[in-house]
Amino acid sequence: MSRVRITVWNEYLHEIENELVRAVYPDGIHAEVASALEEHLDAEVRTATLRQPQHGLTPEVLDDTDVLFWWGHKAHAEVADDVVERVHAAVLSGMGLVVLHSGHVSKVFKRVLGTSGWLRWREADEKERLWNLQPSHPILEGVPDHFELEQEEMYGERFDVPEPDELLMLSWFQGGEVFRSLCTWRRGHGRVVYFRPGHEAYPTYRHPHVRRILANAAAYAARRVSVDVRKPIQVAALEPVPNAGKEHIG
Amino acid sequence: MSRVRITVWNEYLHEIENELVRAVYPDGIHAEVASALEEHLDAEVRTATLRQPQHGLTPEVLDDTDVLFWWGHKAHAEVADDVVERVHAAVLSGMGLVVLHSGHVSKVFKRVLGTSGWLRWREADEKERLWNLQPSHPILEGVPDHFELEQEEMYGERFDVPEPDELLMLSWFQGGEVFRSLCTWRRGHGRVVYFRPGHEAYPTYRHPHVRRILANAAAYAARRVSVDVRKPIQVAALEPVPNAGKEHIG
Amino acid sequence: MSRVRITVWNEYLHEIENELVRAVYPDGIHAEVASALEEHLDAEVRTATLRQPQHGLTPEVLDDTDVLFWWGHKAHAEVADDVVERVHAAVLSGMGLVVLHSGHVSKVFKRVLGTSGWLRWREADEKERLWNLQPSHPILEGVPDHFELEQEEMYGERFDVPEPDELLMLSWFQGGEVFRSLCTWRRGHGRVVYFRPGHEAYPTYRHPHVRRILANAAAYAARRVSVDVRKPIQVAALEPVPNAGKEHIG
Amino acid sequence: MSRVRITVWNEYLHEIENELVRAVYPDGIHAEVASALEEHLDAEVRTATLRQPQHGLTPEVLDDTDVLFWWGHKAHAEVADDVVERVHAAVLSGMGLVVLHSGHVSKVFKRVLGTSGWLRWREADEKERLWNLQPSHPILEGVPDHFELEQEEMYGERFDVPEPDELLMLSWFQGGEVFRSLCTWRRGHGRVVYFRPGHEAYPTYRHPHVRRILANAAAYAARRVSVDVRKPIQVAALEPVPNAGKEHIG
Repeated sequence: MSRVRITVWNEYLHEIENELVRAVYPDGIHAEVASALEEHLDAEVRTATLRQPQHGLTPEVLDDTDVLFWWGHKAHAEVADDVVERVHAAVLSGMGLVVLHSGHVSKVFKRVLGTSGWLRWREADEKERLWNLQPSHPILEGVPDHFELEQEEMYGERFDVPEPDELLMLSWFQGGEVFRSLCTWRRGHGRVVYFRPGHEAYPTYRHPHVRRILANAAAYAARRVSVDVRKPIQVAALEPVPNAGKEHIG
Repeated sequence: MSRVRITVWNEYLHEIENELVRAVYPDGIHAEVASALEEHLDAEVRTATLRQPQHGLTPEVLDDTDVLFWWGHKAHAEVADDVVERVHAAVLSGMGLVVLHSGHVSKVFKRVLGTSGWLRWREADEKERLWNLQPSHPILEGVPDHFELEQEEMYGERFDVPEPDELLMLSWFQGGEVFRSLCTWRRGHGRVVYFRPGHEAYPTYRHPHVRRILANAAAYAARRVSVDVRKPIQVAALEPVPNAGKEHIG
Repeated sequence: MSRVRITVWNEYLHEIENELVRAVYPDGIHAEVASALEEHLDAEVRTATLRQPQHGLTPEVLDDTDVLFWWGHKAHAEVADDVVERVHAAVLSGMGLVVLHSGHVSKVFKRVLGTSGWLRWREADEKERLWNLQPSHPILEGVPDHFELEQEEMYGERFDVPEPDELLMLSWFQGGEVFRSLCTWRRGHGRVVYFRPGHEAYPTYRHPHVRRILANAAAYAARRVSVDVRKPIQVAALEPVPNAGKEHIG
Repeated sequence: MSRVRITVWNEYLHEIENELVRAVYPDGIHAEVASALEEHLDAEVRTATLRQPQHGLTPEVLDDTDVLFWWGHKAHAEVADDVVERVHAAVLSGMGLVVLHSGHVSKVFKRVLGTSGWLRWREADEKERLWNLQPSHPILEGVPDHFELEQEEMYGERFDVPEPDELLMLSWFQGGEVFRSLCTWRRGHGRVVYFRPGHEAYPTYRHPHVRRILANAAAYAARRVSVDVRKPIQVAALEPVPNAGKEHIG
């Protein structure tokens, strides 16, 4: 495969508006995610943020993207519907999409999955332990049978998503909940990955196993084809059909 | 289970505008589908059509519906977005949805599945043979291992849908194509069924096996719960968490 | 549906050999499970145990069984291979199978699933909390969004099973693990359910939510058809094939 | 990934006993399959056949195999049970398995899937057309949206297998049947692929698209980990559990 072309999209508001978050991610969450991808992959990584024109996601950018990462939280409603539509069309045509943490209720994720993305949550600086269900899956290459994040926001079931095509990790939380934390779905010709951890107030994206999963997910979800699925295809019969070719009366 | 409350929605344009279609379904496709449901089920069946105010799908109607049937073809674009949104929310809360034939590119089906619904097609009065993959599934109760429709429109793969939760029938077409003709997916608390046959120009909905499948699908998809999935749920910890209750810094 | 015919199979050794277990289940685990089924269902429940001739699972018993429950632990190796084969054939033909707790490494479960059934485990009288992923599923009718068992044996991931057709509950354990605790798979014409709780030393099968799940699982998995899948079916062509009927040269 | 180590197993009886088959595959089906793999992959390919000691599948051979191909037809019963057991264990530990054509009722395939593998069939030199459902899947890289085999044996639904994890191709047959012709399942840490075409009397394995699929399947299913799943894992608690460590009373 040639070099993977990745775009990391970040809302980029917490880091500007809140000094505690800025202390954790001084260059923004997108910069930290990008550095994880560059650490592990031969990739061409660019970033895009909400306040840029068209949120940085012009048709040209998406045409040049094999996999798009998505981190958003407090401004989901500000993402323009036509950009959401464009991202959705790109996924159906083959672009990969990796949705992170609070992107679970982003417009993009909800449009792609067809569900609400809702869940239980709590912010309590609590421990999360992630369990590896499929060590042979490419997204979990190099990841141990479990690992811990000392401080994370809690997301608990029921997570309102379609049954995942692949369920790869489950989380245990100190406060008593569980969660399907690493899941994949196919939509059109594109692969969609959801990965739970990544609250803005904790240095989760500097954790080595988290970084490895981000990179593995990018490689796994990267575009393999580029097909416009939205065109109707009227076709002639391949075998003899007595009435083929007659007018449509409907 | 108490009486199933069913609403059969039909675009109801072909039957009015085209006398050949009207000859097949003089009271509309919705009336024929409703009669199949009443033949097999203890159900309360109402109908709704595009030209009614709010397309006949007011909040009151949906609140009173356990399963909604959907037949549309030439006027998908005329279905109002707020009605689509309302139907989608009803499905997530537990209402069943049975999408028929050319509903494969309806706004409702695309919103619920997250894909384009596209496929190959041809109108050629050709033979379709449907093969039963799961005779033990409740939707196929009373349906033989295969049956034929002498005249149907052809729909061929690749059908752009997410991997079905259950794949129940496959179609063989005289002209050389195949199709996943009876599929189910869960979205939120609702069950979604797609059933392929039903071109407006043929008497497909009078075929006994087709009628049985319509009724079985209604019983299978009927609402079992009624839960608004779109409310965030912030929760206290169930187990001791030292920092639980502290302020959110994000 | 007519009355469900259920056979509850139990190894029935712990209760005889160990007085602590006997104090919990004086009439055997099978009697307690049977009472839960009779409490909730219009069912004809019989029991069978390891030490009976053919383990109580003669061809006549299986022919007369719509769903078989299976509890075994320390004597999996003593179950005769021909009985395993007979149970497997019955499942493929349409009989339901509900495997409980330590049945995860029974010969029957491994034969039906094709995997080892292995997992992590610990006996520590620890708390288990079960989370409900699909409140609209018939097996979870009447079951709240979560419930707790104060004392249980721990089973933790990775559970070596095929991807479930339906994943219905996840467990959280006090000691830090998680588990896929309620799963279904289809094999042939039969439905298979695995439900995790039920260590012999705790009164788990007297818990009201556990009892409800046992009964719901029986109703869900009960036989709907009776088809011998193991017969090859050589068929004539349904459409013209120029060479059909010629001799097989292979 | 380093060089893929492949073993192609063939019953190798038809080619010896029947001159018409020998005319098609003078060096055996295994040699033709091996040549397809070598044409497309950087692989180390060996072959093994029924009449060799241990059918050529010693523990050493399996330990040195990343993916095993399986072609068998008339002598399934002659495959020794301990070899079947060994192959099964190898799959669970991470070895890939690609089952071809009449291997659908081989002991190995039935053991791995847990179903009978039965189907309808007919030998009539008829046309098969394979439809590509997932052009973005690695097994279908380079394969067009459909292709034809002018002469093949017919296999028709219902195919008695568990719901595939991935359904990749469907076949249309001239005589009126359909079939799920390219499927994948995961078992333990191994990936299993079934690919339908390949009757011994036709030159199917010389068809360029078939050869490409064989090679893609080998790359996809190749071992990624090597883990013995059959060992119980008793573990200490990761979090405080008051009673952890006490004796097991069961």
